[in-house]
Amino acid sequence: MSQLSPSTLRELRNYVGSTVLVKLKGGKGIKGILRSYDQHLNLIVENAEEVDSESSRMLGLVLIRGDNVILISPAPK
Amino acid sequence: MSQLSPSTLRELRNYVGSTVLVKLKGGKGIKGILRSYDQHLNLIVENAEEVDSESSRMLGLVLIRGDNVILISPAPK
Amino acid sequence: MSQLSPSTLRELRNYVGSTVLVKLKGGKGIKGILRSYDQHLNLIVENAEEVDSESSRMLGLVLIRGDNVILISPAPK
Amino acid sequence: MSQLSPSTLRELRNYVGSTVLVKLKGGKGIKGILRSYDQHLNLIVENAEEVDSESSRMLGLVLIRGDNVILISPAPK
Amino acid sequence: MSQLSPSTLRELRNYVGSTVLVKLKGGKGIKGILRSYDQHLNLIVENAEEVDSESSRMLGLVLIRGDNVILISPAPK
Amino acid sequence: MSQLSPSTLRELRNYVGSTVLVKLKGGKGIKGILRSYDQHLNLIVENAEEVDSESSRMLGLVLIRGDNVILISPAPK
Amino acid sequence: MSQLSPSTLRELRNYVGSTVLVKLKGGKGIKGILRSYDQHLNLIVENAEEVDSESSRMLGLVLIRGDNVILISPAPK
Repeated sequence: MSQLSPSTLRELRNYVGSTVLVKLKGGKGIKGILRSYDQHLNLIVENAEEVDSESSRMLGLVLIRGDNVILISPAPK
Repeated sequence: MSQLSPSTLRELRNYVGSTVLVKLKGGKGIKGILRSYDQHLNLIVENAEEVDSESSRMLGLVLIRGDNVILISPAPK
Repeated sequence: MSQLSPSTLRELRNYVGSTVLVKLKGGKGIKGILRSYDQHLNLIVENAEEVDSESSRMLGLVLIRGDNVILISPAPK
Repeated sequence: MSQLSPSTLRELRNYVGSTVLVKLKGGKGIKGILRSYDQHLNLIVENAEEVDSESSRMLGLVLIRGDNVILISPAPK
Repeated sequence: MSQLSPSTLRELRNYVGSTVLVKLKGGKGIKGILRSYDQHLNLIVENAEEVDSESSRMLGLVLIRGDNVILISPAPK
Repeated sequence: MSQLSPSTLRELRNYVGSTVLVKLKGGKGIKGILRSYDQHLNLIVENAEEVDSESSRMLGLVLIRGDNVILISPAPK
Repeated sequence: MSQLSPSTLRELRNYVGSTVLVKLKGGKGIKGILRSYDQHLNLIVENAEEVDSESSRMLGLVLIRGDNVILISPAPK
C-alpha cells in the first residue's frame, strides 16, 4: 500500500484547519475542513459534504479510508 | 494494505456505541451501531441496515471487511 | 492484504455452526453454515447456496477466498 | 496478498483428484479435476472446461492464478 | 502479490517451448510459444498473437506482466 | 505497492518546476507545475487543472495519491 | 506488488533503444522508444504516442507507472 513520504506529509500539514476538496475513486468528492490525516492518507474531515456533479449532501464528521483518495486540493471557500 | 495510524484509531473510538453510516465500495452503505473495529477498519456493526438510494434492508449483526470501506460517518438518529 | 485482528476473529468464532450470509464483491451472496474461517477471512461454508436478487443455486461445500468478502452476517433461518 | 491458513489448506487437500467448480472474478468458471494447489490458491486443474451461463469450452490442463479465484466447490459429476 | 509456490512453478516448466493460451484480465488472450516465466507469472511469449472472440492480431515477442494473468493452458496447435 | 527505482526517480527530478500532464486511472488528467514527488509517485502539482476530453477545471494546488497515476509527461506550454 | 525476476529483466534489456508497444490496463497503448525501465516495470518512453483503436496522439517523453502495464512488445517500425 502506497504511503506518503515525509516531504509529502509536510505539504498535507498545511491543509489542516482549511477547507479541502477530496476526490474519491468512483467519481464522488468530499468537501470539508481537514482535521487530521495519517501517512496512509486516511483523513478526518469535519463539516463534510458529499459532492458530485449534480448535488451535495451533508455528512458531518467523516473518516475517509486513504486508499479511496485520488487527490486532495484546498477548496475555494 | 492501508492501516489506520493510532491517531486515526482514537477518532474511531469515539464512534463506538453510536449509530454510524459506513459507505462501501460499489455504492451501498451500512447503517447501524458500531460495536468494534480494528486497525484494518474491519468493523462489527449491530442492528445493521443495508441502505442505498432507493431502499433499505435489515441485516442485523454484520462483520464488514475493512478494505471495502470508503468512509465512516456518525449518522443522524 | 487486510487481516482480521484477534478481537474481530473472536466475533467470527460465534458464527461457526450457524447459517451466515456472505456478501461478495460483484453483487452475489453465499448463504450456508459457516464451518471454519481463518485470519484472511477465507471461509469454508457448508450447504452453501449462491443467492442474488432473483435466484438461488445450491453449491454444497465451498471454500471462499477472503479477499472477495464484503461482509458476513448471521442469516435468518 | 491473501494466503490460506494451514486449516483452510487442509480442507482444500480433500478436493484433490475430484471434480471442482472454480468461480473466477469476472463471471466465468472453470470445471475440472483439481490436481494441485498452493497456499496462494494457485490451482492446476485437469480436463478443465470453461463454463459460463450459456456455454462451455474445453481447455484441457490449466494453471489458474490464485488471485482470480472467488470460490472453489466440489462439482456434481 | 501472489507468487507461485515451487510445485506450481514445476508445472509451468512443462509448458516452456510449447504453444500456450494465456487468458488476461479484461477478456483478451495471448497465444504463443512460452519462452520463459518467473515466480510472479511474468511471461515471455514468442510468436504471440492477441486473440479475442472475433479477431486475432500478431504481436511477435511479448513480455506479459504476471498480475494480468487469469490462467495459462497448453493450446491446441 | 509499486515504487520507483532510483534511476526512474532521477528522471522525474527533471520534471520539477515544469508543466506536466498526469494521466489518472478512470480517464481524467491533471495538468500543472510539478512541485514535488516521492518514491510512491505521490505528486504535488501547482496551478493544477483537471482536464478531460471535453472540459477543464482549475483546482489550484493538488496532492495526487501515487497509485492513481498511469503516466506523467512534460506538457506542451 | 509483482516485480520482475532477473531473467525477465534481462529480456527487457534487449528492448532498450527500440520502438515498443506498451499495452495499458483500460485499453490504451503507448508506442515509443524504450529508454529505461526498472524492476517494477516502470518505464521511460521517448517519442511516445498514445494509441487506441481509432486514433493516436503525441505525448513526447513519458514515465509510465509499472502497475498499469499489461504487456510490452517490440513494435513494427
